[in-house]
Amino acid sequence: MSSLTSQKCVACQADAPKVTDDELVEFIKEIPDWEPITEDSILKLRRLFNFDDYAQAVQFSNQVADLAEEEDHHPAILLEWGKVQVTWWTHKILGLHKNDFIAAAKTDRLLS
Amino acid sequence: MSSLTSQKCVACQADAPKVTDDELVEFIKEIPDWEPITEDSILKLRRLFNFDDYAQAVQFSNQVADLAEEEDHHPAILLEWGKVQVTWWTHKILGLHKNDFIAAAKTDRLLS
Repeated sequence: MSSLTSQKCVACQADAPKVTDDELVEFIKEIPDWEPITEDSILKLRRLFNFDDYAQAVQFSNQVADLAEEEDHHPAILLEWGKVQVTWWTHKILGLHKNDFIAAAKTDRLLS
Repeated sequence: MSSLTSQKCVACQADAPKVTDDELVEFIKEIPDWEPITEDSILKLRRLFNFDDYAQAVQFSNQVADLAEEEDHHPAILLEWGKVQVTWWTHKILGLHKNDFIAAAKTDRLLS
């Protein structure tokens, strides 16, 4: 169980700190299936989840959407047949906040 | 009401015909809010739907997913806060089949 999952996303202001390179290296160890990617010049966390059919993928998408509402933090959820790609980042700071690592860890936990 | 919505997606084989340029021009008139886009060298149909909150966006995503199962034709559904981007194309022919225009028209109808 990741220690990130024991924490909760906090409301993030525009002047909230982005994670440092050292924090990124530390946090990513707890969510090794997530990839830091840069999209539109914004650093984000992305993971692709595969499923055996559409119904399971839809169900997982809804679990992630429920998590998003609980955390008041909303990712991009890309649903296709048999797969769901989830991308977390913090819109207000155009980058990664610790919130995103917490949310990613909690996304992983949905499958356990 | 679009005449496309009165039709049903048909199972599409790898040798099924892509829509011609003339058909594309004709069909797109029935779904004017959809944009033909090229992604990964594949011609697709895309529309962005905006909503006032997350719950409405989630609900619409699920309606599109239900439509996908009914038609046995599955789009890419990208859910973010307040918006859902839907992209239709036919995987087997790596392009647009008439099915995709039918599915797009039926997606529009979900909002009516």
